[in-house]
Amino acid sequence: MSFLKLKDFEEKEPVPGYKVRFIHSDNMTFAYWNIDAGASLPEHSHPHEQVANVIEGKFEFNLAGDKRVIEPGDVVTIPSNVKHSGKAVTDCRLIDVFYPVREDYK
Amino acid sequence: MSFLKLKDFEEKEPVPGYKVRFIHSDNMTFAYWNIDAGASLPEHSHPHEQVANVIEGKFEFNLAGDKRVIEPGDVVTIPSNVKHSGKAVTDCRLIDVFYPVREDYK
Repeated sequence: MSFLKLKDFEEKEPVPGYKVRFIHSDNMTFAYWNIDAGASLPEHSHPHEQVANVIEGKFEFNLAGDKRVIEPGDVVTIPSNVKHSGKAVTDCRLIDVFYPVREDYK
Repeated sequence: MSFLKLKDFEEKEPVPGYKVRFIHSDNMTFAYWNIDAGASLPEHSHPHEQVANVIEGKFEFNLAGDKRVIEPGDVVTIPSNVKHSGKAVTDCRLIDVFYPVREDYK
């Protein structure tokens, strides 16, 4: 159990314009994104369930062909292996949560 | 899979001053809290792992006797069955994530 501070975690940029800090709990991975306006995330999928939360800004989310602009107060649930992609409409902050842990992000 | 809007979910108040909307995904439960300054949450525990994220405001978190004031950028990981309690220092917004799903919150 622990109290953590995001600023103590290394910021990575796995995709241009997608800056992120990861926290892994016993069962879940949390991705804290700071995304530059205009930056695109190519289509991908993974066996992990994902839930996306918009904290600030606007993000165009494409979930298996259903494309919508999401903003604070919006939540996207992405079941295992469903293809998704996206593009930041403005600078934005998102929190993605994955189950199980993203071992590939450790 | 789905695009969800928090405003479409019923706001509940299971503890005075703790207003919340719940979203349940396949494996996790998300609790979006709006908490009134000064409101206290009695000590409790549950078999679910919990990860607390502060979005706005300050919250005094007591994790098994370790008491700290947390604010945006702070994350608390609470393993299964660890006792915790809290009190809102200011009006605040938190997102708690639980694994597995909180069937008791459905």
